[in-house]
Amino acid sequence: MEITLKEIALLLGGEIVGDETTVISGLAGIDKAAPGDITFVANPKYAKYIETTQASAIVCAAGTVAPGRNLVRVANPYLAYARALRFLNPPPKEPGAIDPQACIAGDAQLGANVTVYPFVYIGPGCRIGDNVTIYPHCFIGKNVSIGCDTLLHPHVTVEERCIIGCRVIIHAGSVIGSDGFGFARDGAAYYKIPQLGIVQIDDDVEIGAGTTIDRAAMDRTWVKRGTKIDNLVQIAHNVVVGEDSCIVAQTGIAGSTKLGDRVIMAGQSATVGHIAIGSDCVIGARGAVASDLDDGQIVSGAPAIPHREFLRATMAFPRLPEMRRTISRLEQKIEALEAELRTLQEKKTT
Amino acid sequence: MEITLKEIALLLGGEIVGDETTVISGLAGIDKAAPGDITFVANPKYAKYIETTQASAIVCAAGTVAPGRNLVRVANPYLAYARALRFLNPPPKEPGAIDPQACIAGDAQLGANVTVYPFVYIGPGCRIGDNVTIYPHCFIGKNVSIGCDTLLHPHVTVEERCIIGCRVIIHAGSVIGSDGFGFARDGAAYYKIPQLGIVQIDDDVEIGAGTTIDRAAMDRTWVKRGTKIDNLVQIAHNVVVGEDSCIVAQTGIAGSTKLGDRVIMAGQSATVGHIAIGSDCVIGARGAVASDLDDGQIVSGAPAIPHREFLRATMAFPRLPEMRRTISRLEQKIEALEAELRTLQEKKTT
Amino acid sequence: MEITLKEIALLLGGEIVGDETTVISGLAGIDKAAPGDITFVANPKYAKYIETTQASAIVCAAGTVAPGRNLVRVANPYLAYARALRFLNPPPKEPGAIDPQACIAGDAQLGANVTVYPFVYIGPGCRIGDNVTIYPHCFIGKNVSIGCDTLLHPHVTVEERCIIGCRVIIHAGSVIGSDGFGFARDGAAYYKIPQLGIVQIDDDVEIGAGTTIDRAAMDRTWVKRGTKIDNLVQIAHNVVVGEDSCIVAQTGIAGSTKLGDRVIMAGQSATVGHIAIGSDCVIGARGAVASDLDDGQIVSGAPAIPHREFLRATMAFPRLPEMRRTISRLEQKIEALEAELRTLQEKKTT
Repeated sequence: MEITLKEIALLLGGEIVGDETTVISGLAGIDKAAPGDITFVANPKYAKYIETTQASAIVCAAGTVAPGRNLVRVANPYLAYARALRFLNPPPKEPGAIDPQACIAGDAQLGANVTVYPFVYIGPGCRIGDNVTIYPHCFIGKNVSIGCDTLLHPHVTVEERCIIGCRVIIHAGSVIGSDGFGFARDGAAYYKIPQLGIVQIDDDVEIGAGTTIDRAAMDRTWVKRGTKIDNLVQIAHNVVVGEDSCIVAQTGIAGSTKLGDRVIMAGQSATVGHIAIGSDCVIGARGAVASDLDDGQIVSGAPAIPHREFLRATMAFPRLPEMRRTISRLEQKIEALEAELRTLQEKKTT
Repeated sequence: MEITLKEIALLLGGEIVGDETTVISGLAGIDKAAPGDITFVANPKYAKYIETTQASAIVCAAGTVAPGRNLVRVANPYLAYARALRFLNPPPKEPGAIDPQACIAGDAQLGANVTVYPFVYIGPGCRIGDNVTIYPHCFIGKNVSIGCDTLLHPHVTVEERCIIGCRVIIHAGSVIGSDGFGFARDGAAYYKIPQLGIVQIDDDVEIGAGTTIDRAAMDRTWVKRGTKIDNLVQIAHNVVVGEDSCIVAQTGIAGSTKLGDRVIMAGQSATVGHIAIGSDCVIGARGAVASDLDDGQIVSGAPAIPHREFLRATMAFPRLPEMRRTISRLEQKIEALEAELRTLQEKKTT
Repeated sequence: MEITLKEIALLLGGEIVGDETTVISGLAGIDKAAPGDITFVANPKYAKYIETTQASAIVCAAGTVAPGRNLVRVANPYLAYARALRFLNPPPKEPGAIDPQACIAGDAQLGANVTVYPFVYIGPGCRIGDNVTIYPHCFIGKNVSIGCDTLLHPHVTVEERCIIGCRVIIHAGSVIGSDGFGFARDGAAYYKIPQLGIVQIDDDVEIGAGTTIDRAAMDRTWVKRGTKIDNLVQIAHNVVVGEDSCIVAQTGIAGSTKLGDRVIMAGQSATVGHIAIGSDCVIGARGAVASDLDDGQIVSGAPAIPHREFLRATMAFPRLPEMRRTISRLEQKIEALEAELRTLQEKKTT
């Protein structure tokens, strides 16, 4: 690759300070960059390297000053870094063809430039948008709809009637549209409640590996636009996850719970069912939310409480045995005081 | 669909109050039902809608009185609802044929009306009962036995020699019969202990998506009749789960632990290995049981304690920092009291 | 099977006490063994059965004395047991052939005696070592390398460029090399950071069913020699797990965290990202490590603290409500004492 600094600045929407004709041929970390490389300062703690880096140009925050260096100043250097990485490492070009070892129902409708790898199964009535890529061993059930530019990694299951948006990425082994976990008691036994709804995954969602999203009992389980879900996450029936949310690995969301937009659930966190989590809430790692949360709450613990309270209580927790001993000692001292006081009072009255 | 109220009452085992010739053509929620619909009141909080619903008939609890309305009174309205839903939405009719793109060992024995989808692998020595349906990409290892009317969703793995009962449902991506996690120390290294047992899944069990059930070291890991297991559950080697139990998502049961009948383990709960959990126990969400439980215990927390104790301790937990401060203040006050008392005593003696 | 005690002692590296010509035809538990069986005493609590067992020979710890019995004394009876089990139950002989229903890229290089089952996909540029066995439905992406004698159970996904060592076992449904969970904020939205690194799994590693190991953003996610990983474990991008470590089911290790050698993480435990866990650390079940650990630490709780502190604090936890009540009572008593003392002092001064 050979690209001028001017072209890079255009790509990243940045402002050049220095020589715009500088030719860039690679990208490297600021402490490892060689002449010809461009580097990024996204974290202020690396700003000190700006003076000493061997890089030919530095992408940095607006306002950065470094006389004699070639800079591209941008609003968000970390985002610029991600964009440059993507530019330098475009996703592989897929063949845009249907492998003869795939099994596709006669009435399935496939858009232009669709890639279907061997051992893919696509059921009757499916509609697959343009530029979709489906890796080996994916299962697409009856009447599923998949939007343009979506990518399914190997072993993804999308059960019947589910709806997947455009530019969605689903990693290996995830299951979309398994039955919700719903039963009616019949004496001691459980009677299965038919799970008749679907899962709807909106545009620009990414779903990790080994994640399971159950279909609704009625209506739909719904993951809205732009939300990113990590590996081994469980999303139960009739859950709604708002836009641009972030659900980290091994988290579980119980049935019918609704999350607002831009919610963050950190690793191994959870919510009970049938509650509402407001927009912009953050649930700390291992947090378990047991009741509704207003917008913007930051909570931790199980059951979850405000994060600061959790931190303070958590710091006190190891002191519990000492606290018990102290209480016990104080009890004895008070008894002693009471006795002595009584003696004094008695002497007084005699 | 057109069905009379009399036929519905017969199906649900209910008692009609009103006009048994009423024709029903749909099912809807009590607040959305239109004339021609039947609706259900399973939750008492919806009983108030009985007067105002547009539904042509209402399935409700025995003893319900609503003059002028057509009622079907049943012992368990929620169960009746589930049954009516199933009646109105029967499972899809499967082709009852073997797809030529499946790979089935020559000596495998398949019952009548078995459906095998493309890319299914069935190993030597398998016996598959009547009316079994096996979705694409399932793997059935050597000498596996599967009972009648069982349904395997896509990507299910059943490793060699495991035994699956009748009317079992296994959702996508679950693994039955992976090796138990057993090693002997050989200095710093681990030496694998051969896992020679099997997994046995009895009749009417349902297993969610992405769940893993390990084969026993010797003998069997055993899930008994009627038990329902949710998604992403881990059941280790030599575990026994009793009848009609309910294991919610992301729960883990460690090796050799035995659960009685009708046990409920809520989401993300766990037990250590080698313990016995009595029948009718309930383990709260995120609960982690560390020792044997008698029948009928209700526990929460990690390590789990009686649920009520857990609730009370949990409510006190955020007060810990305040408690520490109070204790510290009391200590100072007691010291002050002691000093003053000493002064008084000295004055007395002088 | 018929084997003399002498041959067994040779196999296990043990010392015979008794008749080395004794013929052994089976292996059984000490309380169930019949004449002709050999049995093992690995746990001292079974030593009492040495006198009464029907077994023809007993493998036991060095130093065991039992006049009249045939003993094989070894340094580590449990390891000897595992070795004998393996000897008596060798893994099945695989066909060492490529099934015509597999799909293998023309330029993939396969070693000698490789077994590839139906519906396996092997991408371009792969190198597969001698004696490798790949079960049905495995996906091996572009340019993957797999060492000799490795065994992949059904439905394993190994994404492009990942490196798998020799004698590795990966159980069904696990995913090696899914994208790390990395995004840059672009206003409210998330922009995907390309995950350009790989996963490297070294020799003699075993990975359970349904486990996910993400590829590095750059460089590699790395599981070192001899480490054993259980089911449904999540290992995030750029994690390093040292040698001979043991990661039990449903554990999660967040991004860029480094574990030393011989670390044990018990079931459902976790670490935050970007920390270092020293060698020989033990993290208790459900433990959640939030900061660096020196070598040899034993911790529990969330956030994790030294295990003994955790046990003590945990035992005090249910007493919290009682402690609050006691504190409250002591406060009242102190107030009463203060009042009485004041009265006494006033009397004195008047």
